Amino acid sequence: MIPLDEARARILAGLAPTGPETVPLAAGWNRVLARPIAARLTQPPADVSAMDGYALRAADAVEGATLRLAGASPAGKPYAGTLGAGEAVRIFTGGFVPAGADSILLQEDATAAEGHVRVNETVMLGRHIRRRGLDFAEGAELLGAGRRLTARDIGLAAAGNHPWLTVHRRPRIGILATGDEIALPGEKLPEGGIVSSNAHALAALVASCGGEASILPIAPDDPAEIAALASSGGFDLLVTTGGASVGEHDLVQKALGRDGFVLDFWQIAMRPGKPLIWGKLGAVPVLGLPGNPVSALVCAVVFLLPALAKLQGLADTATPTLRALAGVDLPANDKRADHLRATLTPGEGGVWIATPAARQDSSMLAVLAGADALVLRAPFAPKLAKGEPVEVIALAALGV
Amino acid sequence: MIPLDEARARILAGLAPTGPETVPLAAGWNRVLARPIAARLTQPPADVSAMDGYALRAADAVEGATLRLAGASPAGKPYAGTLGAGEAVRIFTGGFVPAGADSILLQEDATAAEGHVRVNETVMLGRHIRRRGLDFAEGAELLGAGRRLTARDIGLAAAGNHPWLTVHRRPRIGILATGDEIALPGEKLPEGGIVSSNAHALAALVASCGGEASILPIAPDDPAEIAALASSGGFDLLVTTGGASVGEHDLVQKALGRDGFVLDFWQIAMRPGKPLIWGKLGAVPVLGLPGNPVSALVCAVVFLLPALAKLQGLADTATPTLRALAGVDLPANDKRADHLRATLTPGEGGVWIATPAARQDSSMLAVLAGADALVLRAPFAPKLAKGEPVEVIALAALGV
Repeated sequence: MIPLDEARARILAGLAPTGPETVPLAAGWNRVLARPIAARLTQPPADVSAMDGYALRAADAVEGATLRLAGASPAGKPYAGTLGAGEAVRIFTGGFVPAGADSILLQEDATAAEGHVRVNETVMLGRHIRRRGLDFAEGAELLGAGRRLTARDIGLAAAGNHPWLTVHRRPRIGILATGDEIALPGEKLPEGGIVSSNAHALAALVASCGGEASILPIAPDDPAEIAALASSGGFDLLVTTGGASVGEHDLVQKALGRDGFVLDFWQIAMRPGKPLIWGKLGAVPVLGLPGNPVSALVCAVVFLLPALAKLQGLADTATPTLRALAGVDLPANDKRADHLRATLTPGEGGVWIATPAARQDSSMLAVLAGADALVLRAPFAPKLAKGEPVEVIALAALGV
Repeated sequence: MIPLDEARARILAGLAPTGPETVPLAAGWNRVLARPIAARLTQPPADVSAMDGYALRAADAVEGATLRLAGASPAGKPYAGTLGAGEAVRIFTGGFVPAGADSILLQEDATAAEGHVRVNETVMLGRHIRRRGLDFAEGAELLGAGRRLTARDIGLAAAGNHPWLTVHRRPRIGILATGDEIALPGEKLPEGGIVSSNAHALAALVASCGGEASILPIAPDDPAEIAALASSGGFDLLVTTGGASVGEHDLVQKALGRDGFVLDFWQIAMRPGKPLIWGKLGAVPVLGLPGNPVSALVCAVVFLLPALAKLQGLADTATPTLRALAGVDLPANDKRADHLRATLTPGEGGVWIATPAARQDSSMLAVLAGADALVLRAPFAPKLAKGEPVEVIALAALGV
């Protein structure tokens, strides 16, 4: 058995980001930038008013003065002339400050009359003007490569005049569930069989992280059929589920071995989910997850999420964790890194209280689905009293 | 001006969840359940082994005993007979415990020989057996209505034998940007114009929350054209951007008024983003956001995200917040609820330090995009010393 961290590092080392593709701005949300985006213009392109009011010279705008209204400068329709002494130009938020003006009189501090405006409050030089380039200057990097694009980023890319974005291609993940005993939901179950749930749960997890999953037909416990499906190709990563333990019915390794599968490692000091396969089938990396649904999903959180991050070119592949306080005493841990299914409840002062489910049996999918978080317990972690801090992965916030 | 909380409550009160639609399990991730899901079978369907080993009677399995190997019970292929005294059946994880057996001998505690198995460690009665229904019983509710489906939920729905799910239809959100001064990215800009960024940022925000956005053509500052586009129909919610302030060039209210727009309110005690329209155009709710990109996005976080949650039928419409510590002294706030653009950095003991950007000008989209969070400051909040707790919305974690 190898340590979890080493296993994850070896998995990540074996993966390379997908290549770039060009997508329309409107399809860019949640994609990962493959090339940085630089501003194609300066914003604002000139000094503009930050408020509705009047552009004028501060020297003229003492309380009680009356200025001649020379024109208007709404957003998008700059005043063409040059403002002279004793003149004011009506201006609106975003409107260009006319040549000759140096300050803005707020409209609530002014009284407008036919062709004139009265200054009701003395104006400070330079007030309420946003300088050219305050937001960004042409050529400045707006968004860096390796960044997952938020809604705000899409707005910024648009403001920088980019109708197209260069992003990493979505990783294509093949998902192969194996086992004579499983059948798709709604299909006839073999006697003593169970409904296949891993493939669809894993496909959803892939989607949650921005990958594209293909669910392959269920492979029976037959090495030739497993090998044929596993080689059906075109994937950046093949994920198998089932057949990774030491039982006599665990055929994935044997099956793939026929096609030149190169095993890197296959047992990890973790719970749930000890048996795990990592290797390559030709050029395609293969991650073999346990068949047990809870083990498969926990292993996917631990290994597949970072793998998807790496494949997508994300600068940071680490799954976010947060700190919570243990809701109960936790016993000392053994040699395996543990992942306790737990609820999160708000504690005093904004902290989270993480309380592991009483029963951590790895067959209990309902407990996993109902959990808010996985409490991470390192190998040989000492016992922990209720109220002491623990590190957790908040699952639902990840869409997982 | 009305308080932010009241404005949000009035918006939510004016919205109803979309109706149900049936989608395949494979398309269910991140959708919101419109009907609860009950288990269609019992899992496990019988008592099953939790380990690889041998099913037997505890009474026979004392250290040193040798039992006759009567058959095998792998997962999916139950042993058909009844286990007799002195007999053992090879069993694998998930395999049905044969009639007559009451315990499992771990394979690592056994020595197998031709037709026999030797017990190397005395077995405890009932050990390593998962009882029928341990995960869930037929008819039990697995997932409730109003729940956004995680990857784990998809697995659980599959395990409960559901190939189809009944979810709320994705809310259809029309997005209408107005203004003579704006043009789409890559298109020719009018003199003094700026690139339209709000519509695409808002569409991304709608996508982040599971809605379907239609970006309408940019409306010029012409009431008839605004009205025609706003009425183009089929939306659960129409979002406009621009034209919501008091300037002379703010036409959205006037334009919609021609078509029987009923205004509920339009000014909110918040910053950035005071001017906001909420009302109805016929049966369609209309949310009018400011034209300023930062104001538009902050208002969308504050009002549109909860609106999308309500439209989707989510049980909880509140946007999640977290507690952080102020990275600098914060001045007392005025009468408007404020939303400071801030970075989050890890502090000691797993807490986040929220440090507002030095300049909070509402025209600075790059600062908003670079922020990790909005620090929420209530109206009249007193000044706060560095290190005191603040409530923040972590934006990137929401895809926003």
